[in-house]
Formats: sequence, structure tokens, C-alpha cells
Amino acid sequence: MSAAAAAGDTSGSVWAELRLADAGDVPHIHRLIRQMAEFERLTHLFSATEASLASSLFPSPSPPPPFLSFTVLILDLLPHPPSSPSNPSNPSPFPPISRRIDLPSPVPDPDAAAFASSRGGGGVVAGFLLCFPNYSTFLAKPGIYVEDIFVRAPWRRRGLGRMMLAAVAAQAARMGMGRVEWCVLDWNAAAIDFYKQMGADVLPMWRICRLAGPALDAYAYAEAEEEEQPQQEN
Amino acid sequence: MSAAAAAGDTSGSVWAELRLADAGDVPHIHRLIRQMAEFERLTHLFSATEASLASSLFPSPSPPPPFLSFTVLILDLLPHPPSSPSNPSNPSPFPPISRRIDLPSPVPDPDAAAFASSRGGGGVVAGFLLCFPNYSTFLAKPGIYVEDIFVRAPWRRRGLGRMMLAAVAAQAARMGMGRVEWCVLDWNAAAIDFYKQMGADVLPMWRICRLAGPALDAYAYAEAEEEEQPQQEN
Repeated sequence: MSAAAAAGDTSGSVWAELRLADAGDVPHIHRLIRQMAEFERLTHLFSATEASLASSLFPSPSPPPPFLSFTVLILDLLPHPPSSPSNPSNPSPFPPISRRIDLPSPVPDPDAAAFASSRGGGGVVAGFLLCFPNYSTFLAKPGIYVEDIFVRAPWRRRGLGRMMLAAVAAQAARMGMGRVEWCVLDWNAAAIDFYKQMGADVLPMWRICRLAGPALDAYAYAEAEEEEQPQQEN
Repeated sequence: MSAAAAAGDTSGSVWAELRLADAGDVPHIHRLIRQMAEFERLTHLFSATEASLASSLFPSPSPPPPFLSFTVLILDLLPHPPSSPSNPSNPSPFPPISRRIDLPSPVPDPDAAAFASSRGGGGVVAGFLLCFPNYSTFLAKPGIYVEDIFVRAPWRRRGLGRMMLAAVAAQAARMGMGRVEWCVLDWNAAAIDFYKQMGADVLPMWRICRLAGPALDAYAYAEAEEEEQPQQEN
């Protein structure tokens, strides 16, 4: 079932809408992260549950303002132009962004039922982006770090990843932030070319260090250790 | 002038104390970042001012709780054991951590006057660490990203960088976080060995992508672009 077919649309177009996620999106977010882990062959690292996502991403009573803490954007594909309810007395901190996507041929989407959009009308959730603030001491400015950007397989190579990344870049620029950063695997030459076309630098020399799992837990129980060791700062 | 000499201490020891920074530390933080930029030969990227640091790191009326937003730790070296005022009715979210540092010989510190500690008594500020929360979707857990860790030149190779990083790891583990991450330059083999000894993994294949400056600002004025391009997700 394709999003267009679901609505009986014969025009060959769908409308992509990028909006802030809320707690009602957690089941879809959980399925999207699982698909991302499968895509990256990293399911052994996947331990998120709907409950742990809900409590960490959408804390009650009210989540913090978007882009000032963990922020999830959801990409819906709708078979009709979105009619965003406007509320002038309470403008959204991130008004949804939409664009038309032309489909030269119907797009089979075997998971359409599992990803039925909460926006209704036969729409589907096609992807998501998760980001949070970071900080540059040299600039003395916050920035945005994009932890994940994912589009489900049937909907790739249609500009949707670019649409999401560009939306975050525009938001960061509007908020006066200094940088948008994310990571890419060094063998993914096509992605690296794509990011460079967007205007990004790919920093060749920095490596990520990660302390996690038992190696991290060990520090919870270790008082400041007293042995003197040769010491390096980065 | 060394910290030990400043207090007329002949024992050859100083006490390192790691504590949360506050707005009163901004002048020292600014000088430390400038020294870090000089050390990394990146002064052309340094545009922080005391005012921009103060407003971005210590927003009024009250900064957010430590480790839930941008967080700065200051490393003081004191010529006497620190006497932390305890306040059982209002315990600190990050009680200061201290340890004795034995100095086999006096340590010349030409910048001691500029870095006189607000803790008084002839102490000096020797370094700082800046960190903020990040998030792992696979774990559905926050973590801590260490953006900067810096020790002034006279005080390096005495375990102070390790003391700061271990303190953050312990805090992350106590808060139930999933990871502590930071970056290192790939040619810094000594630092990489040191981090691996701490239990960290150095991830070989991820590269940082950065959109900044004019390339980022351009997105503030660009509506979602409509051209269809081959699209990659990472």
C-alpha cells in the first residue's frame, strides 16, 4: 500500500510534512529506531523501549521547549496538502514545514499500516530526526547536534533527508546558533559528497571517544583514584 | 609564583578541587578558552567574549540544573585542604571533589596572578571542563558529551585531566546515563592510549560533519528548496 494509493489519489503526488513529535508518536519513533538499527546492523546495541523513550524524550508534566533539549521531528507523508491549524494566540515554536513530492510511479510501502500517521487521512510516517543543543566554547554559542536522521526504505532518494536537515539548519540559523553538526561513516562517500554539497565540512582528524556499559558503570563506584599517571588533555 | 609558594607552603603539596562554575568564574573561563585556542593553534576560530559566555552559560535569572544543560566545572589548586561548607538542607547537585597533589619541586606558574582562585587563600584556577547532555536513541538514555577539557600548561601531567574526566564519568553513571563521549585528534596517540586505559572506545569510522558560518546562515533565508537530489541518510 502506498500513501497515495491509500487515499485513492491518482495524481502521483504526496505531501511531506515535518512537524514536532509528541508523546503520541512514541510507538512510531520506537519502530523507526528499530528499523534504523537493522539498517545499520546494530540491533545488538538496541535496547530502547516505548516506555524508556517516552520518559526520556517527553518528560511529564511538560517537555522543555524544542531545540533547547532533546527534540524529535516526525516526517509525515499525506495524500493531500496539509491543513495546519493555525493558532495566532499560541504560535508553534516550530511551525510544520511541508512540500509536495511527485511520485512518477506508485510506491509500494509494505509497512504502511504499522506506520499509519496520526495526522489521519491515509498518511504514513516516513522518517524522523532527533537532535539536541550542543555548545562551542570558541564561539560562546549553542548549536544543534543531529543524533539521528532516518527515512524508511521505500521513501529514500526523494530529498526527504535533505528536507529534514535543511529545516534544522534553518532553525539553528534563525535561533542565532553557531553550528549544526552530525556524524557520518567514513566509507559512505555518497553521503559525504551530499553533505559537502549542502555546505558542510567533514572534519577528517577528530575521533569520537566513548565510555559506556560496564566501563562507565565502574566509575560510579570508584572514588577519585589516587594513582599518578601520565596525563593527556585533548 | 606557584600555588604552593603563594601560601608559603613548604610541604610540596597542593589540593585540587573540582567544583561547579558560576557566573563569577566567567573571566577565568574566558582566559582558559583563549589559552586552549592558542594551544590548538585555532585562535582564528576564537570569538567568545566574557559577555557572550555569561549569557549563554549562566542565563539569568537561574541557570538550569547542572548536567541537564551546558555545565562548566572549574579546577582550583589550593595551598591547603579545602573546607567545603556543607549545607545539609540544600545539598549541592555536584559536591566538590578534591585530592592532594604532591609536587616534587616548586611549580613556576607565570599566570598565577591572572588565574587567582575565587576560593582565595593563594589558590589558582588550573583548568576547566565543559559538558552537556547528549542522547542515544538505541539506549533511549541521555549521556554526557565533554566538549572541552583543559589544564593550564604548568599543571599538566599530574592526573588533573583524568580527575576531571573521571568525575564526569562518575556523575553520568550515578545519574543512570548511558554514555560519556568526547573527541580526540587522531594523531594524538598518547591521549588515545590514555583514554583506552580509562576504558573508552575510540570509534574509528565516524566523522564529524559541521555546517557553520555563512554556509549555515544561508539556510536561515532559504525556504525549503524544491530541487530533487539523490539523498542519503547516515
